[in-house]
Amino acid sequence: MKKLINDPQSVVAESVEGFGLAHADVVQVHTDPLFVSRAGGAVSGKVGLVSGGGSGHEPLHAGFVGDGMLDAAVPGAMFTSPTPDQIAPAFAAADGGAGVLAIVKNYTGDVLNFETAAELADADDLTVRTVVVNDDVAVEDSLYTAGRRGVAGTVAVEKIAGAAAARGDDLEAVVAVAEKVVANVRSMGVALTACTVPHAGKPSFDLPEDEIEIGIGIHGEPGRRRIKAAPADEITEMLLTPVADDLGLASGEQVLLFVNGMGGTPQSELYVVYRQARRLLEGRGVQVTRSLVGNYVTSLEMQGASVTVLRLDDELAALWDAPVRTAALHW
Amino acid sequence: MKKLINDPQSVVAESVEGFGLAHADVVQVHTDPLFVSRAGGAVSGKVGLVSGGGSGHEPLHAGFVGDGMLDAAVPGAMFTSPTPDQIAPAFAAADGGAGVLAIVKNYTGDVLNFETAAELADADDLTVRTVVVNDDVAVEDSLYTAGRRGVAGTVAVEKIAGAAAARGDDLEAVVAVAEKVVANVRSMGVALTACTVPHAGKPSFDLPEDEIEIGIGIHGEPGRRRIKAAPADEITEMLLTPVADDLGLASGEQVLLFVNGMGGTPQSELYVVYRQARRLLEGRGVQVTRSLVGNYVTSLEMQGASVTVLRLDDELAALWDAPVRTAALHW
Repeated sequence: MKKLINDPQSVVAESVEGFGLAHADVVQVHTDPLFVSRAGGAVSGKVGLVSGGGSGHEPLHAGFVGDGMLDAAVPGAMFTSPTPDQIAPAFAAADGGAGVLAIVKNYTGDVLNFETAAELADADDLTVRTVVVNDDVAVEDSLYTAGRRGVAGTVAVEKIAGAAAARGDDLEAVVAVAEKVVANVRSMGVALTACTVPHAGKPSFDLPEDEIEIGIGIHGEPGRRRIKAAPADEITEMLLTPVADDLGLASGEQVLLFVNGMGGTPQSELYVVYRQARRLLEGRGVQVTRSLVGNYVTSLEMQGASVTVLRLDDELAALWDAPVRTAALHW
Repeated sequence: MKKLINDPQSVVAESVEGFGLAHADVVQVHTDPLFVSRAGGAVSGKVGLVSGGGSGHEPLHAGFVGDGMLDAAVPGAMFTSPTPDQIAPAFAAADGGAGVLAIVKNYTGDVLNFETAAELADADDLTVRTVVVNDDVAVEDSLYTAGRRGVAGTVAVEKIAGAAAARGDDLEAVVAVAEKVVANVRSMGVALTACTVPHAGKPSFDLPEDEIEIGIGIHGEPGRRRIKAAPADEITEMLLTPVADDLGLASGEQVLLFVNGMGGTPQSELYVVYRQARRLLEGRGVQVTRSLVGNYVTSLEMQGASVTVLRLDDELAALWDAPVRTAALHW
């Protein structure tokens, strides 16, 4: 294992420290317990947004803390849920007096620990509502999850709910917008290679030199099937078709198309995938009116990509377009 | 070799096509010959900025086309200089009547082909001035270069010269700003793994499982030395020290610190490197007042990073801060 780290035990703390130094205009880092919040503190009267999860998926989630998106993010150990005693102070830091929305990817540990933290917050008279993201159509139930997993679609939930909170929606309304995104976003991914979690020291699974895994999870959990390596256009069709079918996309609809890199994929390859996913959508009569391409929900240095489609209406498109100022998304 | 491509011969064209579709609000793609220009066309009365080079380093250069940065970019084949007949029409597309600045990384093929294209432009009464970027302190002369190589510092040259052109500087003044950046920016990189150029089909060099290459070039050209894998803080010091020494940084000076990923490095590791580079600079009494961390000048899926330091004065800091709206940099 070759990595630019000092020690598997300190990599998360050191990385988050570096992140805080590089983006001090946008975030502040709290070390005991570890979480990240907006540089300016909670916004009075605004619904606070908090997310979090295992580290190793950067820029998710700390990269999305800032104006128009999250108020706080809680990084767990590598591929490990953050603990309730990390999450509860993040809720408090995000509290501007209008309640807090927790955006949680559907992994059993995350759901459980955010729920426990919400109970702790409730005991302090802070109302926390939770929306669980489960956009991965690859498998029902998996290694760490009951029901579908939450993957790259989380970026859309955080961006759009963040914009709703920023425009002044109350907690119920922000929850409703977040649930609307969850209901209309689907994803599926492929791995060409495994990744190595630092404290494990060896690849998280074995993938032969001539095989790829369709439907991979962001921790390398098994997907739908292994196949021989194939041309990008064929792989893209294997990802896009179940996504579009699950959404029941009809001709004339408008969507956001998001091609996400798993961390170790050259950007040139992501655009090859984007090109084909777009052609397939247009072939169904679906209009791609918003796009995102890049490494946003990663699995360390895994090579691979995922395709996410979000069905848009005018409200979701406007909230997607609304200004955002975070380390990883900025417009 | 497992890659998300269809065919090594078509990957650049397909990728640039996808890039153009995803970012149609910012760029337009020309296919015969292949180059990328601003969506709105040349800006009348503004100095045009053009860069280019081999593909495989994305988002460099097409990702930097847009308001406040480049007017056109010319992608060659993978790790191969673009040809003069690609570059000359890009010059013409960038021409707003105030002349064109070509920003060229110091590789023999790039320098030669941009020079030939400038002669073609001159025959059409278009004045092209060229600034060569040579920020890599690792080696004097290398596999493809006489003199120092041009690497990640190119981003700073393109951003800052782009801002100078956007504020209305004339050609001589934009050239002077670009040369000032070149004179004050230095970089050095490390590779943990090699990358595989699609048409080659095998890694561009061999690096044993327990060794890393200090001073690597962005095409995998040999660096200063191979060493056993070491902690990130030690590696970072091996990169930062020659950079800071070559710049002759003195206590009290202000800098931009840019940690660039080579394409396959987890973001968490880049921030570990940033943290240590910043500590080392601060230990010298140098103030880091601007930061950039991410994959901006890559080598396909290579794992590794480079450290770039730009000495700032008020003018360069203001030009760095000026608005930019491109696919890869946006503020």
